[in-house]
Amino acid sequence: MPGKGNAGCLRILKSMLGGIEAGGTKFVCGIGTNPEDLQTAQFPTSSPEITVNSALRFFREQSSHIEAIGIGSFGPIDLHPESPAYGHITSTPKPGWANYDLVSPVRKALGVPVAFDTDVNAAILGEARWGAAQGLHDAIYLTIGTGIGGGALVHGEVVHGLVHPEVGHLRLPHDLTRDPFPGTCPYHGDCLEGLASGPAMQARWGVPAGTLPEDHPAWELEAHYLALGLVNLAVTLSPQRILLGGGVMQQPHLFRLIRIEVGRLLNKYIRHTELIDRLDRFIQPPGLGSRAGILGSLVLAEQTLAGSSPGFTGEPA
Amino acid sequence: MPGKGNAGCLRILKSMLGGIEAGGTKFVCGIGTNPEDLQTAQFPTSSPEITVNSALRFFREQSSHIEAIGIGSFGPIDLHPESPAYGHITSTPKPGWANYDLVSPVRKALGVPVAFDTDVNAAILGEARWGAAQGLHDAIYLTIGTGIGGGALVHGEVVHGLVHPEVGHLRLPHDLTRDPFPGTCPYHGDCLEGLASGPAMQARWGVPAGTLPEDHPAWELEAHYLALGLVNLAVTLSPQRILLGGGVMQQPHLFRLIRIEVGRLLNKYIRHTELIDRLDRFIQPPGLGSRAGILGSLVLAEQTLAGSSPGFTGEPA
Repeated sequence: MPGKGNAGCLRILKSMLGGIEAGGTKFVCGIGTNPEDLQTAQFPTSSPEITVNSALRFFREQSSHIEAIGIGSFGPIDLHPESPAYGHITSTPKPGWANYDLVSPVRKALGVPVAFDTDVNAAILGEARWGAAQGLHDAIYLTIGTGIGGGALVHGEVVHGLVHPEVGHLRLPHDLTRDPFPGTCPYHGDCLEGLASGPAMQARWGVPAGTLPEDHPAWELEAHYLALGLVNLAVTLSPQRILLGGGVMQQPHLFRLIRIEVGRLLNKYIRHTELIDRLDRFIQPPGLGSRAGILGSLVLAEQTLAGSSPGFTGEPA
Repeated sequence: MPGKGNAGCLRILKSMLGGIEAGGTKFVCGIGTNPEDLQTAQFPTSSPEITVNSALRFFREQSSHIEAIGIGSFGPIDLHPESPAYGHITSTPKPGWANYDLVSPVRKALGVPVAFDTDVNAAILGEARWGAAQGLHDAIYLTIGTGIGGGALVHGEVVHGLVHPEVGHLRLPHDLTRDPFPGTCPYHGDCLEGLASGPAMQARWGVPAGTLPEDHPAWELEAHYLALGLVNLAVTLSPQRILLGGGVMQQPHLFRLIRIEVGRLLNKYIRHTELIDRLDRFIQPPGLGSRAGILGSLVLAEQTLAGSSPGFTGEPA
């Protein structure tokens, strides 16, 4: 039976997609095509050379044929294919990574197409395909961890625009009498990231956020800043849902506090069930948990193969 | 020559599009197909019945055949065709207009297709077709007048999402020692609209904004709040350009102050020429001046005829 032989042949040559979730704390590398067959490994984000070499070693050691790699990266990054800095991380404060070309070494070493987008754009693509944003055309994935960043779907496509969104740098009300902490952002001081990222919490309270008890006032303050950020996203993008991931959101009680505060701040101005009665549905954890970014990077890889790459239409910087 | 007779016939039966820019202060009605042939009339926004009847009289008195009407309305409005409140203005604080059905009386009286969107979505469509956003796929039109609102193009289409953007209600830093004014928004107090709309300026300074001299400190404060709003829009939507219209922006010196403040607030974090060296191009007045909204409503009418209506895909409230 020739069919049997072909099946065996296909199994040996099984084609896979590769993904890199390039984060400020760790790089997650994955190979697979969906949540069921995904295999991952992770490496701490140290110097660019050491980190990228670890990733390349992981892909070289795979027995499957990798057809394309998707990279979802921390940023800001240059996404414009015609820009001299395409594929680079640009102005990050992270030592060693500013102006680092992340795409070229991967493409050269592995000889396959490489798709490149922000880590959070990858995450919302993953959530739209397999997670808590399935069937939605307008949704946001927000990560609150080492930094704060967001990826948004509008009309079913990730937003790029001129560069790409940088929602961690939203400016928010900051009542210095309630919270005299000046913020940690080296560019803006008390922007959303400067007030509410994991490092901001640690700097304000002197201990890692995860060690603070549930009834510590830190959490109400954190919920207040995150809710202000969510309200600003809600009035600008009018999303159907906002998913909150990242290290700081590994506190389930924080979701409840955020929903209450978002309801209070919106004050029923926008009359839609989701924003009044169903904030439990409007604000959710990611359906893919911590795998949204790496699974989304497979979607990026797939889009590149299909020729429907993220559709970046911005302008060279 | 049969051609001559046909031309005469066509002239008599010339088909036109109708537009209504339904604003909180005035209704502008227009008939035409482009900036060259547009004819307009305007009526003060009084009670819904009186205002809409004035508009209907204008269209009935036209000798041309009107094929469709586009309405760009102040809001919030219900844009979902399947919602029982489709075509209504919903939660406006404007007396008499909350829960008013603006679409049905126009459709019934004139018997033509009626397209319905926000006034600012109409304006960015007009600017993209004939004005200062031509050729751009990601751009924002912001009006600063009786209220503050914004329409955004993403991937060349206006953003609707769950409801529609309400960027006048962005929450911003508000230094009460510098500006103890509590804000005028009945829902949120010191949101962008509460701090920086025309009525907010008048309430803070005791005189209409337009009567304040150029060197009055009001303008630096106004530029500060508007710049904070623009920065929040820039980090969320990553637009290629932001156009500023409305009554408050009829002060040319305000553009210079806003550009300086946006540059200072962004602090070169996002490394793109437009946001560092070309803020004069990034922040501009509308190319169509005060006609952006009414011309954009013709684009709405045209989209309805072409069957490519604004593509609303949101959910009933």
